[in-house]
Amino acid sequence: MKVAVVGIGIIPFGENWKHGIRDMLADVQIAALEDAKMSEKDISQIYTGSMCSGEFTGQEHLGAMAAENLNINVPSARIEAACASGGTAIRAGLQAIESGNADIVMVNGVEKMTDISTEAVTSGLMGAGDEEWEEFHGFTFPSLYSLMARAHMNEFGTTSKQLASVSVKSHKHGSLSPYAQYKNEITVEQVLNSTMIADPLTLLDCSPITDGAASAILTKPELAKKYSDTPVYITGSSSATDTLALHARESLSRTKSASIAAENAYKQAGISVNDVNLFEVHDCFSIAELMAMESLQIVKQGASGAYAEAGNTYFDSKTPINTSGGLKAAGHPVGATGIKQLYEVVTQLRNEADKRQVPKAEVALTHNVGGSGATTVVHILRR
Amino acid sequence: MKVAVVGIGIIPFGENWKHGIRDMLADVQIAALEDAKMSEKDISQIYTGSMCSGEFTGQEHLGAMAAENLNINVPSARIEAACASGGTAIRAGLQAIESGNADIVMVNGVEKMTDISTEAVTSGLMGAGDEEWEEFHGFTFPSLYSLMARAHMNEFGTTSKQLASVSVKSHKHGSLSPYAQYKNEITVEQVLNSTMIADPLTLLDCSPITDGAASAILTKPELAKKYSDTPVYITGSSSATDTLALHARESLSRTKSASIAAENAYKQAGISVNDVNLFEVHDCFSIAELMAMESLQIVKQGASGAYAEAGNTYFDSKTPINTSGGLKAAGHPVGATGIKQLYEVVTQLRNEADKRQVPKAEVALTHNVGGSGATTVVHILRR
Repeated sequence: MKVAVVGIGIIPFGENWKHGIRDMLADVQIAALEDAKMSEKDISQIYTGSMCSGEFTGQEHLGAMAAENLNINVPSARIEAACASGGTAIRAGLQAIESGNADIVMVNGVEKMTDISTEAVTSGLMGAGDEEWEEFHGFTFPSLYSLMARAHMNEFGTTSKQLASVSVKSHKHGSLSPYAQYKNEITVEQVLNSTMIADPLTLLDCSPITDGAASAILTKPELAKKYSDTPVYITGSSSATDTLALHARESLSRTKSASIAAENAYKQAGISVNDVNLFEVHDCFSIAELMAMESLQIVKQGASGAYAEAGNTYFDSKTPINTSGGLKAAGHPVGATGIKQLYEVVTQLRNEADKRQVPKAEVALTHNVGGSGATTVVHILRR
Repeated sequence: MKVAVVGIGIIPFGENWKHGIRDMLADVQIAALEDAKMSEKDISQIYTGSMCSGEFTGQEHLGAMAAENLNINVPSARIEAACASGGTAIRAGLQAIESGNADIVMVNGVEKMTDISTEAVTSGLMGAGDEEWEEFHGFTFPSLYSLMARAHMNEFGTTSKQLASVSVKSHKHGSLSPYAQYKNEITVEQVLNSTMIADPLTLLDCSPITDGAASAILTKPELAKKYSDTPVYITGSSSATDTLALHARESLSRTKSASIAAENAYKQAGISVNDVNLFEVHDCFSIAELMAMESLQIVKQGASGAYAEAGNTYFDSKTPINTSGGLKAAGHPVGATGIKQLYEVVTQLRNEADKRQVPKAEVALTHNVGGSGATTVVHILRR
């Protein structure tokens, strides 16, 4: 094991019009400290994942803000890897502890997305892709993922109904998740009949625009029991990168960075996919969850659609995926998503997930993607 | 010692209209690899400091870009701590090596600032301050630093002529620095008579808007001689934070984060300020260099103005400061500045600084500030 997670904090995701980025960040920081029954004076370093705080709120320099929120003067930096900023912040915190420079590190994720126009958000988010080769020519993320969906359909016979089944399951989980942005259940028909965004992806194949934040406290394994009766241990942590632009990749229907990161993380943890009891994966679009299942080796390449449609990924079935509601129903405050994934699996591994609790949750995996797959971060955790 | 610097790369700073952010980044990455006589396959992780790439160029996700530029798939993230992003990226790289997860790490800094309007740049840069308490009310960085200058004048009798002497020295050094944006020498009279920007700071008290990038390669000390005949060792690395907003600080004329970071860095390196042969400090405004001299204990609080005016900070005098030309004359591509400081002191410690070479350069210090002092990073290096 590498480090222990001894505190977690989150706020309800959604359109938090009453809370600015500073408030959201402070709220989750305090929640994590309270969860760990810890003083802010115990924190040695802070890493905060955020993708577009400058573009969306005018506020860069969230590192200093995160330290100021706790009235401490410790080293504190922002980490950005597009929508994988949260997962990447966890890795920075983990390395700070492993380096011997810090005993206790706070990692945060935050994004305030609803204070500006949808057009401005869409443009900002395209900064996760390739500005010269994609954004300049009119690409948006729905259109990039629609190309992947179409390639997957062509290559493996994946259907729109199978894609829709992912969103249906996410909303079911969202209905059981106290912090989810969307708690309404939906049907396959509703997904198929919702507004077409980028063929074959409809509105309900797409994750929403969300305000949100989450926080966690990491420490050395040997200190874990001091702060938590139910510590969770990170046993694998890996990240890999690929070209920013989708067209430059080896394949449209496979995510190379995710395959590399998963392989390395399994190796570090000394386990295989069969040992994992639940997964939080980066379902920015329904096709992304199917591709994640293949990258993580949950199913063979091309088999994800049928597997999902058969109901194998509900919280109480074979391989639970996205019990939080995923990006689709819990919401996708981009820089916070990686920390939310950590929040959800720690909650599950503590056996505190109430109505969405996965039975016998011993080992979990998180999969956090930046852009169309230019960055993937995979973590493996066990209780 | 913590890590060794075995490769450095830079491009000339200025208005690089012919080079986009990707080109500038790739150029310095390749230069650093060539300097270390190393293959890109040797790199285990990459950290890239950039403050406003999203706001200034539309391109976030520079981590993936930096890996793509080298055609490798390693973990690679962007680090942001406003104008201290470069120094903070060095710290992330250092901790990656100290954690045992990487033998060789590339650290980059890059900022492309001249493709958008000066107004948009000024607004973007205010993201380093406090958006709610400062930018919203009309503050810009010249106005924030003018308050510090006025406080320093009131408290210690610092004069406009003393401030001007800092810029005069910077331009002298710039005239000797091959990569400096401004190579023209200037006089105290020219500084005093240039356009008033924010009383008492005139145009020539202020650092410019600059395109630029720099890169360095770090490795474990035990591997240093494999890649460099003249490795430079980082013996102290420290960072501290303070409130984002200037008004919330304990003092306008002292930088608490810099004092803490310097104290810790000296302790780590086991030296005092008297052992340091040259300094690269964050002179975003002339007053900032004077305050840095006090934070770093080069002179007593309040004594910096007279000390600078007496000519003690030229490359061939008592305590050389900013032989690169500093932010004033070398230019200030915000996210790149911290790596440029590393480039300059490594060049000096290798005895390769030609006409601006500091005699007997054995130990050097870099001081990289974010915002009006909400983050300060200090590194100590020796050959």
